Amino acid sequence: MSTDRFAPLPEPPYYAVIFTNQRSKGDDKGYGDMAETMVKLAKTQPGFLGVESTRDETGLGITVSYWKDETSIASWKANGQHKIARQSGNEKWYEYYNLRVAKVERSYSGPHES
Amino acid sequence: MSTDRFAPLPEPPYYAVIFTNQRSKGDDKGYGDMAETMVKLAKTQPGFLGVESTRDETGLGITVSYWKDETSIASWKANGQHKIARQSGNEKWYEYYNLRVAKVERSYSGPHES
Repeated sequence: MSTDRFAPLPEPPYYAVIFTNQRSKGDDKGYGDMAETMVKLAKTQPGFLGVESTRDETGLGITVSYWKDETSIASWKANGQHKIARQSGNEKWYEYYNLRVAKVERSYSGPHES
Repeated sequence: MSTDRFAPLPEPPYYAVIFTNQRSKGDDKGYGDMAETMVKLAKTQPGFLGVESTRDETGLGITVSYWKDETSIASWKANGQHKIARQSGNEKWYEYYNLRVAKVERSYSGPHES
């Protein structure tokens, strides 16, 4: 299988931005285009480590982006195109969301042998 | 809309266990039953704060569970039924997974007014 949709596991500590969101109905094309653009743009930002993202058929999505430190998160938040995207998110794309910033302390991948 | 699938936002710090996983094909019934049982059991554990979980049609899932502290995560990991479920996960239910333990430092919900 491909592990393209998994982010790498650098040595902790690093940061995770956990964004859990319920999409509003409609404008899937506009939203999809924006989401794709934002991922491409995030990948060019200093301190970006990776992203993992999925969404079910009801529109509940979880996206976790990983960053080297708080400074890289702050720079990404200040990016002009990202600001415009967040504004659209607040105005029309999300019914509800939670966002948490967390410091990753340990990690591993699997499956493990039992 | 309902916010049932969102976890509460207690005052940080608290802990997040970010589990990103690719389901193997097949045994959806067995897996679904186990997953439901594990969520019910987790909710009875000391220090459990909530869970957010979603999975797309390709089988890529992200489940983030929230815990009061490291002690509550360790107790849950030591739970006998949870151990058996993890063993099945390693043996047959997951093609690949990443697990990260992170300390939540700040959080908010939205949408926000722009």
